[in-house]
Amino acid sequence: MNQVRYGIIGIGNMGSGHAAILTSGKIKGAVLTAVCDAFESKREWAKEQYGAGVAVFENATAMIGSGLVDAVVIATPHYDHPTEAIAAFAQGVHVLVEKPAGVYVKQVREMNEAAAKSGKTFGIMYNQRMNPLYQKLRDLISTGEIGDVRRINWIITNWYRPQAYYDSGTWRATWAGEGGGVLINQCPHNLDLWQWTTGMMPTRVRAFCQFGKHRDIEVENDVTAYAEYANGATAVFITSTSDAPGTNRLEVTGSRGKIVIEDDRMTMYRLREDEADFNARNTVPFASPEVWKIELPKAGPSPEHAGILQNFTDAVLNGAPLVAPGEEGILGLTLSNAIHLSTWLDDWVDLPLDEAVHEAELNKRIASSKFKRPQPAEARN
Amino acid sequence: MNQVRYGIIGIGNMGSGHAAILTSGKIKGAVLTAVCDAFESKREWAKEQYGAGVAVFENATAMIGSGLVDAVVIATPHYDHPTEAIAAFAQGVHVLVEKPAGVYVKQVREMNEAAAKSGKTFGIMYNQRMNPLYQKLRDLISTGEIGDVRRINWIITNWYRPQAYYDSGTWRATWAGEGGGVLINQCPHNLDLWQWTTGMMPTRVRAFCQFGKHRDIEVENDVTAYAEYANGATAVFITSTSDAPGTNRLEVTGSRGKIVIEDDRMTMYRLREDEADFNARNTVPFASPEVWKIELPKAGPSPEHAGILQNFTDAVLNGAPLVAPGEEGILGLTLSNAIHLSTWLDDWVDLPLDEAVHEAELNKRIASSKFKRPQPAEARN
Repeated sequence: MNQVRYGIIGIGNMGSGHAAILTSGKIKGAVLTAVCDAFESKREWAKEQYGAGVAVFENATAMIGSGLVDAVVIATPHYDHPTEAIAAFAQGVHVLVEKPAGVYVKQVREMNEAAAKSGKTFGIMYNQRMNPLYQKLRDLISTGEIGDVRRINWIITNWYRPQAYYDSGTWRATWAGEGGGVLINQCPHNLDLWQWTTGMMPTRVRAFCQFGKHRDIEVENDVTAYAEYANGATAVFITSTSDAPGTNRLEVTGSRGKIVIEDDRMTMYRLREDEADFNARNTVPFASPEVWKIELPKAGPSPEHAGILQNFTDAVLNGAPLVAPGEEGILGLTLSNAIHLSTWLDDWVDLPLDEAVHEAELNKRIASSKFKRPQPAEARN
Repeated sequence: MNQVRYGIIGIGNMGSGHAAILTSGKIKGAVLTAVCDAFESKREWAKEQYGAGVAVFENATAMIGSGLVDAVVIATPHYDHPTEAIAAFAQGVHVLVEKPAGVYVKQVREMNEAAAKSGKTFGIMYNQRMNPLYQKLRDLISTGEIGDVRRINWIITNWYRPQAYYDSGTWRATWAGEGGGVLINQCPHNLDLWQWTTGMMPTRVRAFCQFGKHRDIEVENDVTAYAEYANGATAVFITSTSDAPGTNRLEVTGSRGKIVIEDDRMTMYRLREDEADFNARNTVPFASPEVWKIELPKAGPSPEHAGILQNFTDAVLNGAPLVAPGEEGILGLTLSNAIHLSTWLDDWVDLPLDEAVHEAELNKRIASSKFKRPQPAEARN
C-alpha cells in the first residue's frame, strides 16, 4: 500500500475540517475517498464540495463495508465514537477517532480491546500533542531535566462559552447528548496533556464540579480538581466556561526546577542541584537552592490536525510510531470520569476507576436529562 | 496623652525589630519605655542595647503592671499571644499583637472578648495590609471595579524552608511548640490577605495538608485548600515550604474583570460590560466579552511594620481607624484552623468553625508531639 484511502464519519465542523486537510494534498500518502453523514443536507453539501472522486454514504456501516476505505476518521457526537470504532475494526479498517475517545471509561475500554484484537492502526485526534510547547514540556520532564515531579497546577479557565453557544444545539451540555460539559467537550486536550506531558496518572482524585454555573445548562461548566500521585506529588486542575478573561497557565514543579507555560510562552527555572541534595547538605536555616532562569530555543508552530493526520498515515503505511495512540484516549477520559464521580459521590475516587459505579451514576443523569437521544448510533448512521 | 509609651513582650527576632523601629524616632508619637523577656541573655542584651531609658523586666505581668507602658507589642511564641493580650487588657493597656493572633480560634475569640470589654486599642501586626499592591486590590474589589468575585486562586509556594531551618529550634514545626506548620508560621499574612482583599469568608472548606513533605517535621508544610462562598464563588490556596523555586501568584476573577498579582506586579483586565450582561444580550455562539488590559498607576513602596506601628500609635492618640484591627486576626486563623480540621477529618468543614471539635483534634496532636512545652506562658514571662 502506498496510499491510505480515508473515509470520514460525520461531516460536521470537525469532519469537514479534516476533509479539507485531506483534500488539500498536504498529507503525503493520504487520499479522501468517502464520507458519510446521517443528515441529507450534509450529504448533498458533500457531493457538491468533494465531487465524484469522493463517495457519499448514508451511514458508517455502508461506508466501512464498501471496500473504498482503508481508514476512517470518526467525527460524530462523543457517545458514538466507540460504537463506530468497534464496527470499523471488525471490518479490518484503521481508525482515527476524534476526542474525547468516548464518554465513559467502560465503553472506551471495549473500544481499546477491539482495536487490539483487530491489529489495525488506532489513533486519536489529540492535535495538541503536536504543539512544540507541550512536546518540549514532555521532553524536559521525561528526561529528568526538572527532577521528580512534585506539583502540577493547571488553571485553564479560558474556555469561555456564552449561553448562545449552549442554546445552539439541543444536545449541547446535556447528560444524554454529550455526557458532560467542559470536561467532555472543551477540556479533553488539557486532560490528555496533563497526563501525557508529565507521564503520570494520579492514584486518587477529589473534585468539585459546579453545574450550570452562570448558565442555563444541566452539566458541569466550572471545575476544581485535586489529585494525588504515588510519588507524593499533587495536582490542581481548574477550568470554567464563564470566566472572562480566563487564564491558561500550566505550572509543573519538580525537585530540580519548574516550568511555567502561560499565554503560549514557556519559562523554565532550573536548580543548580536537586532540591533534595541541597536540603541534605545545607546547614543554613534561611538558605535556598540556587535558581537559574533558562532561556529555551524558540519553538516552531504546531502542525495541529495536519500533524496528526500525517503521523497516522505514516503509521498505517510504514509503521511509524503514533504520537497519539487511540488506546491512550482512555487516560484523559479516566481523569474526566473521576472528576465527575468524585463530585457525584462527594468523596475521593481511587484510580483505576470503578467503571461500573461511574456508569451507574452517569446513567442516572442521562435518565433525567432534558435531552432525549433520538436513536442509538448504529441506527442513525 | 501626646505620646504612646510602648513595652515589648519578647525580644527575639521580631520583638527586637519592632524595638529598632520604635527607638529610631520614625514613629511619630511613640516611645519605647520597656521590654521584657524570659531569657536572662536577652535581658542583658536589651540593657546594653537600649540603655537606661528602657526598663527591662523578667516577665510580662511585671511590665504591664509597672505603670511604664500604655501599650504592649506581643512578639512571643504563637500560643502565648492571647494569654498575654488578655493580661494586658485586664490592666487597661493597649495591645498590638504579632501574627498569628493565636493558634486556635477558641483562644483568639476569648482574646477578642477581653479586648472589647477593655475598650482599649487592639491591633495586629498584619504589615502586608500596608502593601500598596494589596491595598489597591482591596480597593478595586470593594468598589466593584471587577464586579462580583467569582474565583480566587493563590499559589503561594515560595515559602522555601530547608531542614536546617526546622532543626534550628526544638519547638519549630511541632504541634506543641507552634500548633502547625506553614499555615501558622509562614502563611498568616497570606491567609489574612485572602479574606481582607476580597472582603469574603468562605462558607465551607475542603483541604488537603501533607505533613512532613520532604522534611523531617510533624506538621503540615504542603497544603492545597479549596473553598466555596455564599455567592457561588470558589477559591484555591496552595502553599509549600519545599518547592523551589516557588510561585507567588494571586488571581481574582470577577464578573467584570480579573486582577493578577505575580512577582509584585499587578495586572488588571476589565470587561467593557459585566459578563452577566454580555451573556444575557449576546446571540453569537462563540462570542466573548470585550476585554481591556488596564495599566494602573505605579504603587509606591510598602511602609511594612513601621506603617502598622504608626497607624496603631495614631489610633491610640487620635482615634485613627486601624488598618489591622486585632479582632480581625480571627479571620485568617479561622481559615488556617479550617484547613487543618478538614484534613484531619478528611471531610468538609463548614464555617463558622466548630471551635470545640477543632480544639479537641489539635489537642490530640499536641499530646503526641515530640516537643513538650516547658511551662504555661504566664510562668515563663
